[in-house]
Amino acid sequence: MSHSSNSKGGAEAASNQMWGGRFASGPAAVMEEINASIGFDRALYSQDIDGSIAHATMLAATGVISSADRDAIIDGLTTIRSEIEAGTFTFSRALEDIHLNIEARLTELIGPAGGRLHTARSRNDQVALDFRMWVRDELRRTEAALKALIGAFLGRAEEHARTVMPGFTHLQTAQPVTFGHHCMAYVEMFGRDLSRVRDALERLDECPLGAAALAGTGFPIDRQMTAEALGFSGPTRNSIDTVSDRDFALEFLSVASICATHLSRLAEEIVIWSTPQFGFVTLSDAFSTGSSIMPQKKNPDAAELVRAKTGRINGAFVALSTVMKGLPLAYSKDMQEDKEQLFDAARALDLALAAMTGMVADLKVDEKAMKKAAGAGYSIATDLADWLVRELGLPFREAHHVTGRAVALASERGVGLERLSLDDLRTIHDGITADVFSVLTVTRSVASRTSFGGTAPREVKKQIRHWRKRLEKMG
Amino acid sequence: MSHSSNSKGGAEAASNQMWGGRFASGPAAVMEEINASIGFDRALYSQDIDGSIAHATMLAATGVISSADRDAIIDGLTTIRSEIEAGTFTFSRALEDIHLNIEARLTELIGPAGGRLHTARSRNDQVALDFRMWVRDELRRTEAALKALIGAFLGRAEEHARTVMPGFTHLQTAQPVTFGHHCMAYVEMFGRDLSRVRDALERLDECPLGAAALAGTGFPIDRQMTAEALGFSGPTRNSIDTVSDRDFALEFLSVASICATHLSRLAEEIVIWSTPQFGFVTLSDAFSTGSSIMPQKKNPDAAELVRAKTGRINGAFVALSTVMKGLPLAYSKDMQEDKEQLFDAARALDLALAAMTGMVADLKVDEKAMKKAAGAGYSIATDLADWLVRELGLPFREAHHVTGRAVALASERGVGLERLSLDDLRTIHDGITADVFSVLTVTRSVASRTSFGGTAPREVKKQIRHWRKRLEKMG
Amino acid sequence: MSHSSNSKGGAEAASNQMWGGRFASGPAAVMEEINASIGFDRALYSQDIDGSIAHATMLAATGVISSADRDAIIDGLTTIRSEIEAGTFTFSRALEDIHLNIEARLTELIGPAGGRLHTARSRNDQVALDFRMWVRDELRRTEAALKALIGAFLGRAEEHARTVMPGFTHLQTAQPVTFGHHCMAYVEMFGRDLSRVRDALERLDECPLGAAALAGTGFPIDRQMTAEALGFSGPTRNSIDTVSDRDFALEFLSVASICATHLSRLAEEIVIWSTPQFGFVTLSDAFSTGSSIMPQKKNPDAAELVRAKTGRINGAFVALSTVMKGLPLAYSKDMQEDKEQLFDAARALDLALAAMTGMVADLKVDEKAMKKAAGAGYSIATDLADWLVRELGLPFREAHHVTGRAVALASERGVGLERLSLDDLRTIHDGITADVFSVLTVTRSVASRTSFGGTAPREVKKQIRHWRKRLEKMG
Amino acid sequence: MSHSSNSKGGAEAASNQMWGGRFASGPAAVMEEINASIGFDRALYSQDIDGSIAHATMLAATGVISSADRDAIIDGLTTIRSEIEAGTFTFSRALEDIHLNIEARLTELIGPAGGRLHTARSRNDQVALDFRMWVRDELRRTEAALKALIGAFLGRAEEHARTVMPGFTHLQTAQPVTFGHHCMAYVEMFGRDLSRVRDALERLDECPLGAAALAGTGFPIDRQMTAEALGFSGPTRNSIDTVSDRDFALEFLSVASICATHLSRLAEEIVIWSTPQFGFVTLSDAFSTGSSIMPQKKNPDAAELVRAKTGRINGAFVALSTVMKGLPLAYSKDMQEDKEQLFDAARALDLALAAMTGMVADLKVDEKAMKKAAGAGYSIATDLADWLVRELGLPFREAHHVTGRAVALASERGVGLERLSLDDLRTIHDGITADVFSVLTVTRSVASRTSFGGTAPREVKKQIRHWRKRLEKMG
Repeated sequence: MSHSSNSKGGAEAASNQMWGGRFASGPAAVMEEINASIGFDRALYSQDIDGSIAHATMLAATGVISSADRDAIIDGLTTIRSEIEAGTFTFSRALEDIHLNIEARLTELIGPAGGRLHTARSRNDQVALDFRMWVRDELRRTEAALKALIGAFLGRAEEHARTVMPGFTHLQTAQPVTFGHHCMAYVEMFGRDLSRVRDALERLDECPLGAAALAGTGFPIDRQMTAEALGFSGPTRNSIDTVSDRDFALEFLSVASICATHLSRLAEEIVIWSTPQFGFVTLSDAFSTGSSIMPQKKNPDAAELVRAKTGRINGAFVALSTVMKGLPLAYSKDMQEDKEQLFDAARALDLALAAMTGMVADLKVDEKAMKKAAGAGYSIATDLADWLVRELGLPFREAHHVTGRAVALASERGVGLERLSLDDLRTIHDGITADVFSVLTVTRSVASRTSFGGTAPREVKKQIRHWRKRLEKMG
Repeated sequence: MSHSSNSKGGAEAASNQMWGGRFASGPAAVMEEINASIGFDRALYSQDIDGSIAHATMLAATGVISSADRDAIIDGLTTIRSEIEAGTFTFSRALEDIHLNIEARLTELIGPAGGRLHTARSRNDQVALDFRMWVRDELRRTEAALKALIGAFLGRAEEHARTVMPGFTHLQTAQPVTFGHHCMAYVEMFGRDLSRVRDALERLDECPLGAAALAGTGFPIDRQMTAEALGFSGPTRNSIDTVSDRDFALEFLSVASICATHLSRLAEEIVIWSTPQFGFVTLSDAFSTGSSIMPQKKNPDAAELVRAKTGRINGAFVALSTVMKGLPLAYSKDMQEDKEQLFDAARALDLALAAMTGMVADLKVDEKAMKKAAGAGYSIATDLADWLVRELGLPFREAHHVTGRAVALASERGVGLERLSLDDLRTIHDGITADVFSVLTVTRSVASRTSFGGTAPREVKKQIRHWRKRLEKMG
Repeated sequence: MSHSSNSKGGAEAASNQMWGGRFASGPAAVMEEINASIGFDRALYSQDIDGSIAHATMLAATGVISSADRDAIIDGLTTIRSEIEAGTFTFSRALEDIHLNIEARLTELIGPAGGRLHTARSRNDQVALDFRMWVRDELRRTEAALKALIGAFLGRAEEHARTVMPGFTHLQTAQPVTFGHHCMAYVEMFGRDLSRVRDALERLDECPLGAAALAGTGFPIDRQMTAEALGFSGPTRNSIDTVSDRDFALEFLSVASICATHLSRLAEEIVIWSTPQFGFVTLSDAFSTGSSIMPQKKNPDAAELVRAKTGRINGAFVALSTVMKGLPLAYSKDMQEDKEQLFDAARALDLALAAMTGMVADLKVDEKAMKKAAGAGYSIATDLADWLVRELGLPFREAHHVTGRAVALASERGVGLERLSLDDLRTIHDGITADVFSVLTVTRSVASRTSFGGTAPREVKKQIRHWRKRLEKMG
Repeated sequence: MSHSSNSKGGAEAASNQMWGGRFASGPAAVMEEINASIGFDRALYSQDIDGSIAHATMLAATGVISSADRDAIIDGLTTIRSEIEAGTFTFSRALEDIHLNIEARLTELIGPAGGRLHTARSRNDQVALDFRMWVRDELRRTEAALKALIGAFLGRAEEHARTVMPGFTHLQTAQPVTFGHHCMAYVEMFGRDLSRVRDALERLDECPLGAAALAGTGFPIDRQMTAEALGFSGPTRNSIDTVSDRDFALEFLSVASICATHLSRLAEEIVIWSTPQFGFVTLSDAFSTGSSIMPQKKNPDAAELVRAKTGRINGAFVALSTVMKGLPLAYSKDMQEDKEQLFDAARALDLALAAMTGMVADLKVDEKAMKKAAGAGYSIATDLADWLVRELGLPFREAHHVTGRAVALASERGVGLERLSLDDLRTIHDGITADVFSVLTVTRSVASRTSFGGTAPREVKKQIRHWRKRLEKMG
């Protein structure tokens, strides 16, 4: 509803001082800079042209315009698409946005028929359509990127189903796990992200076109037809909501934000594991930078940047939520602030997913360092305790107590639990037999944890098979 | 993995000065205050007891504990539940959290058998289970509350399917719509919230119990059995992920945040519409406050408070996202900060939904004021333009131009478009006939917008029927 | 510490599929896109050159380099500055950032002497310096913009010191105030913003140069000298902190965020006051858009866009806070995410302040509409109550009660309080005399509120004088 | 302006079903729960009473009330304070907030004189006063807590001015620094926080009392007098702004947020340094928790919880910013959402500062582990390069190149740079002399970095002295 007929006053010259350097030409320059969206919404040109072709086709089918007009419109739009893609289209900031830029050029190309394209349509539903289609494309990109990342993890998990590493709580060694199992934790996390992306795609699967300014229209349009032509399962059900709604953008950002949080956790682990102190992994050269002076040094730049992208994506969610808070229906110009935030967050997410997929695929794993760390810190103490419960029937809390004394003794001697003699162990609890040593290795420890979803290699492999099938089914 | 064996040193007395008033007793007091969660996680007592009963039942069924132990455990837990609900249970901050409080009391009540309950289980998976079940309950509450709010809107929409009001863009009158249609816009918005809630419920439908500390367990547990007993469709698939995951909390908060944004838009409209200047609606006494000095004054307090709750809920999403950012797997104590934020946001959402349902149901609508405003500002100008396109075949942009001149003439005379004479109109375009007057009323305007999802009363009623059926099907 | 020696592997071709459309050339393309900052940090070219000139001058003064080298370096940098400003400089993404781009060109221009510039300096302290100087410039721009906005308000306040309007609470008319008084409320708000900007300027007034990579340097540099040359009052005091610190950016964003909140409140008032229902103000053509079909319509686009900018600025604060959360000292690559967020927020703030200054200066005020609204809703009821307290000695709460009954009577009769007869009033309280009518007008009401900071015109004028002096003193 | 005269209708019983479990008694219960603030604003009782005593004293001094009334009021308020502090005061939710609770009790205690206290005052300015005074108290608490934390760091810095540790960038060893120097980085960070706190205190140093509802008052009050009595340097300058303003709360939250970010960085370092892999520090028992089964294990719970508090504090800033966004002046009920967020953030900050002060003071530092790590990874490579520049006059970039070759050779041999023979070094550059070995130790490296703010022990000590003086001056 805001076809600009913005007339810029004559008193401008006098007021120049007030505006200072950035806005030397006064109010007109300020208004143009704050109001025009062509600087960023040109990204929607393809969606805009697709929408217009579908609209023209429907208008002709329902008799609102002639088929000659329809053909002229489609020809004109096809030309415009080529011009834009060839870089020969002249975008005008005075024409504010992508919609008016295309409309003006169309009329230039085909005359008054260009004007008929806008029958039974408004910029409000056009904006809603174009942006929604862009978000749909981005969700599909994200879906593919998540599948690639999950695929990379499944590969590493298979390779390392038996690689023992420390399982951490509080970043302290807790119990041995396998690196494959750890990889599969990320498969679950990114799998949930994938499922959220698919839900979001399903939820936005309604076509806004036909809502007009906000009240619908009296022209005999066929919204089912345009919806189908544009790949939606049907039209939206309320025209006021249609031009007011940015849920699809907020939902994308919230999904992206949770996914970015997962990426940040993985990035943090890569940064920590890449320190000389941990030494569990080395990033490939492609994803790290070095130092001209310390040739052996590798900085995990890519992981750090992925970790940082979380900020930008969370910030975008906050930004759009803040914009939408308390806006009366239907369209308000505030909503023009939706696109830059989302475009930026989408680019950050795409980039972070691609970089992480590369890092995971190329990561060099130091199995020896992992295994050595896995055995440190009495990580198998719970295995001893479980043995006491299982074989000697001790209540859980008593078993803990006995184990604590064994650890204290080993610690005093500066050795691992498995290096205590049977006699030593018997001074602590005389029911202990030599069988106990069968559980006191990190390899036995991980092999024993066969509960569903546990760290035992065969469980890990079962879950890998499960996920391969699941991805296959998704197609 | 953090069974507190926190020993508090003797040098405390000396260091008292450093701590100042709040923490007079030194480090021990600071640590207890920052570390203990019993102040808020006692809200999980019921989930904790349910989880323990399911675990004990499974342990007996798989032969890990005896049925006598199981019975004793269940008896003890049942007693504890009664004690908590009767207010006779003594919570101890030294015992840190709800899990250890219940465990200690259980052992007090039933002796060593209490200790057996913790076989093949860890606080980490217990926390994950209890909190997830609480969030599940809250999502179900939200589901019911959204249905009630949608129901209230459907009632008002039906009642006001023909009530004409201004449709706004930029808070300026744009075209007439019906109040029923406006109500149905909110039905769509809260309907999407409902759908997000249901997706979230489905996604969290996996039982964490059995992940143990983080690696799974070697005891022959049956995770499918506990999952079923606790109403989940199955167990989670990766034990590390299980104790690291707070997606269900983040997803609830993001869903709540989008819903709160919707509520804030509605609240803003109520605040604006309640001003003497608009005068469209009056809140019932139950939801407004008055002034002892201006008895006719009504402040829309409830609407303002609902609008403000958005802040708290968005803040909680940011808070938890910030906490989870960059946390290495698996459990870190940071994650203890998840509950208070979510509990608070949940309470705010419940309250806001209930208050809004009451406001919507009780709202007094001034149909006259709405209709009068609907006709102001040449809101039917697009109807004239559409008539010119439809009846005279003018291209859309030319029709706009002609209409603009008619509006300018009417404005100059200080009258509405419908008050111009046919002769006047013919001076602007000589093709205009008396038939044009048939579209120049707000009632005709809304009746004409019959496109799918448009504002015409019969369209509005169709959508009401659609939604009633949809809700019915959901049960 | 990350001089890129990034070698990109040969296996790339094979992995192309994995990367999909955006990153067709594999890991190298992904890494370059995520790692390079030249796309945005070229905005720092001027600060970078200034810093290098100061550094070279100091190195020569302390004998670390020769004066011939210094002269060559300064000549080279001056050439580079001209090239960049003329648009003839070729930026290379392979050279990552503005610092390496300039360094490479310098060596090209002047040979090995270019390399000597980097003695006793590191990219880490260069980044810290350049960005800090950019933020300092922006804070100064903000300072000037706030003064211009305050100036605009002072002008309007003076003009409207006697213009009566409704004072609102809960957007309901509460008591009459003057528009001048309302303007002065914003002067206080933006005045606090100004004071925060000045504090931030003072706090960042320390020069990072000389921190080197993170540990300082053994070269005999003179940090006081470079600090002075670059307009700082002295050097920073800890080299590790210097390369780790982004407080100046966070503080700018928090100050911007509070200022944007103020702007959003004002924007909201303009939007509401511009509705036909309120009709208090009309935006000038320069700051609104119209409709080709409804020539009388004016959409307050500029105000809506200013209101929306709050989202973007709050989002930037959240983004950078999230990035910095939990980062170990000293420099991590995450910190490269600081600039785009801040540049974007700064541009939004500059634009919003300029647009608002224009709107305020040009706003057309409808004094009649304001005065009429001021008298509605028994806004002078408290004046009656105060009269009862002051003249008849009634306790405050009783006076309220009596007033309530008078309002109820007037409301029943459908008239204002001032239209009740003395007899009517005496039936409510027999002490009332004809003198009461002297307080029962909106003009008398505002004139009476002479407490310090109150709405009485002479108080408003006093505060205008106070602020004019204050601004003058600031220079 | 919202003295509740909320009458709750009779149709409630019938509507109970709609409200469900939480709100069984219908609208009245919902409204009471959403509207009443007594649950949290009772924290302001002391500020409220102080404000009322100052107001009564001033009213008597200016002749608005009698001194008998003043004495009765002060007596009554003193009694109420005792009742509240003794826990015998009965708070009523029906009376909404702390102000009405105290007012009602006062009238109960002293009769009609209680009503006179509210002459020339409104709940709006009372709320503004009480909350501002609470924030002032909290800022003072924060100031003291920051000084304590800085003090703890100064102590550790002094103790460890010569303790060598690795300086990190990208969490990779970059150059040796001293632990004292690292401590002093935090002194700078928390020093800036301290300075922000002091600026905030100065900015809020204006007394709101006397703004009345929003327009000031006609009673001859003396605002300077109440301001002084309450410890402010003067009254606020605009009554509308006074009841609309929450800048002091937003500013506190933004200051707290930056401070929490600093705390989170330190907490992260403690968590990483406490791993067995790093082993740089051990938290005292008071600030860690152990495991009953692994007695040697220490989880850095307190550090993790401090790190997590950042979320809560950032969330509170977002929450209140969101609430305030777009609120028209003057008071809106939305603003009641300010307190709980701020109280919670303040408690989190107090707790985090106290816990961190304790951790820093008690931290056990493993100097050997630090020193060993400092020498790893060719951290002294830049010292060799600097020697080449300084002693042989090589340009910086060439020196880097030579050093790179030396590191490559040492790395190939598996030794440190200092273990290469002079002959080896001469094969790389024949100008190298035995003097080079004088710089090739971590102790020499740190000792050499004597630039202002550098890591050399004597520089560190200079900065410690500087800070001790600065704190002393602040008093």
